Amino acid sequence: MSPPAASAFRAVDVIRKKRDGGELARGEIESLIGGYTRGDIPDYQVSAWLMAVVLRGMTRAETAILTDAMLHSGEVLDLSFLSAKKVDKHSTGGVGDKTSLVLAPLVAAAGLAVPMISGRGLGHTGGTLDKLESIPGFNVNLQVSQFRSVLETCGCAMIGQTAEIAPADRKLYALRDVTGTVESPYLICASIMSKKLAEGIDALVLDVKTGSGAFMKSEEDAVFLAELMVETGERMGKQVVAIITDMDQPLGNMIGNALEVVEVVEVLRGGGPDDLRRLCLELAGWMLHLGGVSKTVAEGKQQSEKLISSGKALDTFRQMVELQGGDPRVIDDAKGLPQAGYTATISSPKDGYLSSVKCEQVGTACVILGGGRERKEDSVDPAVGIVLHKKVGDRVSVGEPLATVHYNAETKAMGAQQLLEESFQLSDAPPDKKRPLIHRVIRKRGQEN
Amino acid sequence: MSPPAASAFRAVDVIRKKRDGGELARGEIESLIGGYTRGDIPDYQVSAWLMAVVLRGMTRAETAILTDAMLHSGEVLDLSFLSAKKVDKHSTGGVGDKTSLVLAPLVAAAGLAVPMISGRGLGHTGGTLDKLESIPGFNVNLQVSQFRSVLETCGCAMIGQTAEIAPADRKLYALRDVTGTVESPYLICASIMSKKLAEGIDALVLDVKTGSGAFMKSEEDAVFLAELMVETGERMGKQVVAIITDMDQPLGNMIGNALEVVEVVEVLRGGGPDDLRRLCLELAGWMLHLGGVSKTVAEGKQQSEKLISSGKALDTFRQMVELQGGDPRVIDDAKGLPQAGYTATISSPKDGYLSSVKCEQVGTACVILGGGRERKEDSVDPAVGIVLHKKVGDRVSVGEPLATVHYNAETKAMGAQQLLEESFQLSDAPPDKKRPLIHRVIRKRGQEN
Repeated sequence: MSPPAASAFRAVDVIRKKRDGGELARGEIESLIGGYTRGDIPDYQVSAWLMAVVLRGMTRAETAILTDAMLHSGEVLDLSFLSAKKVDKHSTGGVGDKTSLVLAPLVAAAGLAVPMISGRGLGHTGGTLDKLESIPGFNVNLQVSQFRSVLETCGCAMIGQTAEIAPADRKLYALRDVTGTVESPYLICASIMSKKLAEGIDALVLDVKTGSGAFMKSEEDAVFLAELMVETGERMGKQVVAIITDMDQPLGNMIGNALEVVEVVEVLRGGGPDDLRRLCLELAGWMLHLGGVSKTVAEGKQQSEKLISSGKALDTFRQMVELQGGDPRVIDDAKGLPQAGYTATISSPKDGYLSSVKCEQVGTACVILGGGRERKEDSVDPAVGIVLHKKVGDRVSVGEPLATVHYNAETKAMGAQQLLEESFQLSDAPPDKKRPLIHRVIRKRGQEN
Repeated sequence: MSPPAASAFRAVDVIRKKRDGGELARGEIESLIGGYTRGDIPDYQVSAWLMAVVLRGMTRAETAILTDAMLHSGEVLDLSFLSAKKVDKHSTGGVGDKTSLVLAPLVAAAGLAVPMISGRGLGHTGGTLDKLESIPGFNVNLQVSQFRSVLETCGCAMIGQTAEIAPADRKLYALRDVTGTVESPYLICASIMSKKLAEGIDALVLDVKTGSGAFMKSEEDAVFLAELMVETGERMGKQVVAIITDMDQPLGNMIGNALEVVEVVEVLRGGGPDDLRRLCLELAGWMLHLGGVSKTVAEGKQQSEKLISSGKALDTFRQMVELQGGDPRVIDDAKGLPQAGYTATISSPKDGYLSSVKCEQVGTACVILGGGRERKEDSVDPAVGIVLHKKVGDRVSVGEPLATVHYNAETKAMGAQQLLEESFQLSDAPPDKKRPLIHRVIRKRGQEN
């Protein structure tokens, strides 16, 4: 075969190079992502390339270039009109993880800007947008101009992905979903980081979950992804830290959209379950530190505690809800939130200790109730969910409630209840060792704090 | 996620299973290939699966199931009306490989039926259909009824793939071509064997090429593919043998469509270059043996030699050409074949020995002249080509012709000549050892002959 002209980009050459384990050059990755976004390169070539990436991997340099190409496939928000530093948090997803709703107003109350673009729930994990939408009237589909205005007024705003932000990621994600190419740390990293960096932020705190309810079940996989994201962020000139946190049991006590809003308000009032409150303070501490508001993370946590006890964080939340069209009265009276028609209790079959919870199964039980999605196009019932009464390590007596199911349909409740009953493991003795809530902190070398 | 109904086939599950190195079940492969052929499964899912196969491989059982599924995606020819045994040969492709045109009439003259469905040239390798079409009037696009009739009359017929034969392979091959998934022995095996077995044959001789002009450059890769094809054929109840033969220099002396027909006629007249004649007799010997016409391969070779010296093989060729609409006069007078307008000679720059030929480059030189295709949609000039005057190991004197280029366009000739000049390596001493023409024979254990 005569060699093709040097200028002619052929997707098949890039696919073959990655198939054979080669490292792609910037121009090759940019041409592939640009061509795909424009519709010049067909799905079937990109899916073959994605599978080659899943099985052959990428270098750190390639991952950063891919992230950059996806980021620049669309608009990067220009928030330079805000004098405050822009800081965000992203979680890899879990069961009962409602920290975003606490952190956005809390960190904004500290004087930073939090321009948060979030996703919906899929599979056993919940999504920030679904939780927000359980607040009557809350609009997550703001125009960019409205988003800027809310941000300027109260320091935080929470919306869904727009058509302008990282369109390559939206197209790639839909393709990965149907071609078995979701599970690649390189592709997950590029997807997360391209969207987050398109928010025009200065710093990012990543909450990478590990355990039975996380996408990364093993700590090793979680650390690998965390290191990749931290390095990608640093290569792109952003301050990034990743906290490996536990998702071996649900976070907090409530799972389900409106129920989680109730728990968020509890934390913002200074209460709420211990694990949720501690994680929020840890993440807030890092956000304040990276945003330059506190000298250390410890100081950032203390400031955050004060912003909660003074009521400032809750005021900011109330203000954001109102600015985004939501009914702020639900903050003071949870009865304004959607309520399920019925409840059922799951009681302990014996005396003993709660030794473990099958976390993914609890998330799936909430999906079965209607509180989550099996498919992207499914709608969500905001009222249903699960309230847990025990955490791992707690003592339980026979007949004592382990969980309360909030439901609207009897048949769905039966399926969810069965799954829940199987999710709780009881033992006679207390479990030997407790998993820590914070497993470790990943920063670029030389930036420990 | 709740488990999907057991009956629901989801392509993404099969992709994920292969991605993770699992062995696919018959039902999974059949649903995938059937769904793809019907258009129910999109290209982008199949290309991801193909890449997973390239990188993860397949077991022998999976390869046979895939072959079977592709074979049964269309019609399997029913040639049971012929009392003779049906035997065919397939080559993995090379430069100057015109054995099919010799073998079909030769083996038919021995009383066997040769229902040969062939392909076109692509890249540096030539194709049987292009060679046949250089005979004025020769029609490779017969209806199945015409194909049967030619077969019945003269014992052999040579056509191109029809829409009815293995449609899954045609669709898959087009997709593999643009997704970097051609180079997989499992996929190559299934592609070749599904098409060949759809011919309704009893036995098959595979000519698997190895060397610088072959797709499988290393003997190891050639043997791997050969073993895979032999086992696949045996699993499907056919007699199959694979001969690993040399393609480190072009086969015979002529490369180019009409030129190769000239050389075919030379061999059928009992002449022609030594390597081409020997390979034809070896392959014919095996075809006669597997077809039950000779007790041993050696006996089959002797019979073949007699069919050539008696003129019977050439008569059969003449008859087939005529039955398929071709002008049989070209057999006795090559001037009836397309002739290039010009020739140019490449002379040896020094005294010495021809130590090696870059075989793929010689094939590419013929493509540049217009005698082959870079893309499937390219048309072919039947008249152009290259005549080699020396084989590896031959002594050459300074100024002695190494090759003659037959061309129609000056600019193309210049590119081809340069490539050809670089293709010949000369040495002062004769090369130490000569590569054998026949490297080895691969049969199923217990069937050596």
